[in-house]
Parts: sequence; C-alpha cells; structure tokens
Amino acid sequence: MAKAQRKKASKKDLIVLRASAMFREKGFPATSMRDLAEAVGIEAASLYNHIQSKSEILQEIVFRIANDCNVHLDSLDDNGTNNTRKIESLIRFHVQMMLNRFDDYTVMINEWHHLTEPYLTNFTTQRRNYVQKMEAIIEEGIRQKEMKPVLPYVAMLTILSSVRGLEFWHRSGKKISPQELEDNMVSHLISGLKKN
Amino acid sequence: MAKAQRKKASKKDLIVLRASAMFREKGFPATSMRDLAEAVGIEAASLYNHIQSKSEILQEIVFRIANDCNVHLDSLDDNGTNNTRKIESLIRFHVQMMLNRFDDYTVMINEWHHLTEPYLTNFTTQRRNYVQKMEAIIEEGIRQKEMKPVLPYVAMLTILSSVRGLEFWHRSGKKISPQELEDNMVSHLISGLKKN
Repeated sequence: MAKAQRKKASKKDLIVLRASAMFREKGFPATSMRDLAEAVGIEAASLYNHIQSKSEILQEIVFRIANDCNVHLDSLDDNGTNNTRKIESLIRFHVQMMLNRFDDYTVMINEWHHLTEPYLTNFTTQRRNYVQKMEAIIEEGIRQKEMKPVLPYVAMLTILSSVRGLEFWHRSGKKISPQELEDNMVSHLISGLKKN
Repeated sequence: MAKAQRKKASKKDLIVLRASAMFREKGFPATSMRDLAEAVGIEAASLYNHIQSKSEILQEIVFRIANDCNVHLDSLDDNGTNNTRKIESLIRFHVQMMLNRFDDYTVMINEWHHLTEPYLTNFTTQRRNYVQKMEAIIEEGIRQKEMKPVLPYVAMLTILSSVRGLEFWHRSGKKISPQELEDNMVSHLISGLKKN
C-alpha cells in the first residue's frame, strides 16, 4: 500500500473506533456526523473522504463482529470436541468479545436494527443461522446424554442473555478479573446443562 | 370512595397502563403527553386532571414493581426454606413478573434512569439493597455447602440477565408456554449453582 493509502486506512480505523464508542453510549440515531468529526478531530466535511455515510460505519462494526462469531462457531464444527465443550467454548468466546471488544459487541447487540437493506436482512439471517446452530449443538448434547433434556431455545437465550448482562459489570467497578468472570459464568451455565 | 373519585381513579389506572406500554416501546423521553392522550382517548389538557406529569407516571410504574420485588424478597427471609429454594423462588418470581407484567417490568429495567430526584436516589438505593440481599442468600448457600463456591455477584448477574433476556421470547413467537420457560430457566440456573 502506498503511504497516502495507509494513512487513509488508519484514519478510517480511527473514525470507526470513535463511532463505535459513541454509538454505544448515545445510540446510533443520536450520534451526528458533526459529533463524530469533533471526536476524531477533523472537519465534518472531511469525514466523507474516508467513509460514505454513518450507515457504512454501522455496517462495518456489526459485520466485523458477526464474522468473528461465525468463524468461531464454524471452527467448532471441524474438531472432535464434545457438545458440552463446544457450548463452553461459545460461552468463553462471547464473554471475551463482550469484555475485550465492548463497544463493537454492544453496538451489534443494541443497534443492529438501524442497519439499512440489504444489510438488515443479511444480518438477521446470519443471526438466525447462528442461534439455530447453537441450539443444534445443545440438541445433540441432549441426544448424546451429555446434557439433560432442556429446551435448547431457552438454554441458548439464557446463555446469550447472561453474556449481555456483563454490560453491568463494566459499569459496576467491581474488582473481579475478566478471567474470574468468564470461569464463574462457564461454571454456572455449563454445570446447569450437564446431566447428573 | 364516591363515584366521581372511583371514576377518576380508574381513568388514572388506564393512563398508567397505556403509558407503560408506550414507555416500553418508544422509551420514556420519546413518549409525549400528546401521544399518551391520544392512546387514552382524551384531550392532552385533560390528562392533567388525573396526573401531574409524565415523571409521576414513571414513578408509579417503577415503584409499584420495585415494591412487589421487595415484598417477595422479604417474605423469603421469614420462612425456614433453604437458600437454594430461596434463589429458586426468586427466579420464578422474576420470570413471572417479566411474563405477566411485561410492560411495567421492562420499563423499570430500561427507563428507571429517567426518574428525577428524590426518586432516582431512592430507587438506586433500593436496587442496591435488593441485589445485596440476593448475593447474601447465595453466600449463605455456599457457606451451608448447598451451593458451590461461585462469586455471588456473577451468579446474581447471570440470573437477573437471563430473566431480562425473556424480552426476546416475547418477540420470537416461539410456542413455549410460560410454565415451560420458567421451569427450564430454573433447572438450568439452579442446578448450575448446586454443589455436586
């Protein structure tokens, strides 16, 4: 990449980074391009040298996280680990996303419905596939008698909702390390699924 | 109560009922007194015969739910059930609140920060006491060796976040009965806490 192109790319990264924090705090609709330009430290008009629209930024944030979730889920299919381990790996992955990529992950969770077409339908389809695959792993775990007979939909909802709730830990100022948080949540949610 | 007073009281109930649905759907700030009057079927100016302000309605909704939560929690202290049963009772209670009083419960969860003083501080104090009591039950359960050594804060967060996630079940159109939902969530979250 030529130097000018590299500079342009890194400026775009900075714009998306700042936008993600603002979308999380204020929501997508309430974040103006003017606010964003101020946070980045450039003129509002100059933003358009780097990005086409506010929607484009939301797309980048949402699909980057969605891609990483899909790649992780597909990597589980390829190895020979059992279904309980797969769900454990999913919980750990989502907790880490929530803790390490808090802005992006929270924006995906809370702001995805502001996507425009065709991105909106694309995202909801990906999400439906994702939770169906997750439920299929739980179903298989029940069939293999690793897990007790729960409703896979409810177990999936309990797991993803618990991760989402870590938003409050971020704000609580509690002195609990990310690793303790992850291990505790895994212990609670995995042993709750296991067949005694 | 005289007939005129009864009529006034029931109109106020209707206003709070409609407001709760609107606050949940659109959020407290985006709901105008004009929209609310239209939903109730009266003139905007007439609303003020029944309520003083939009804030007063939010207070009614939030403190009604908070009171019921506190009354339930205190009823657990008085009887001799063990700590695991107390947490099970808490989960069932919150699931039922979320399912049966969806608008009010969701408004409390999502809109409480729009309360004005002194109600705001009063609510956050009540909430802090509530989760501390819940964590104390889990701590006692660990001490009594009913529960495994988890971090009470994380277990509390996992439980309340799971209930909160039932918002998605409401929208999903899944054919799962409220009782199945409650039993599945209790099974997952309680057996995950128990000492093996």
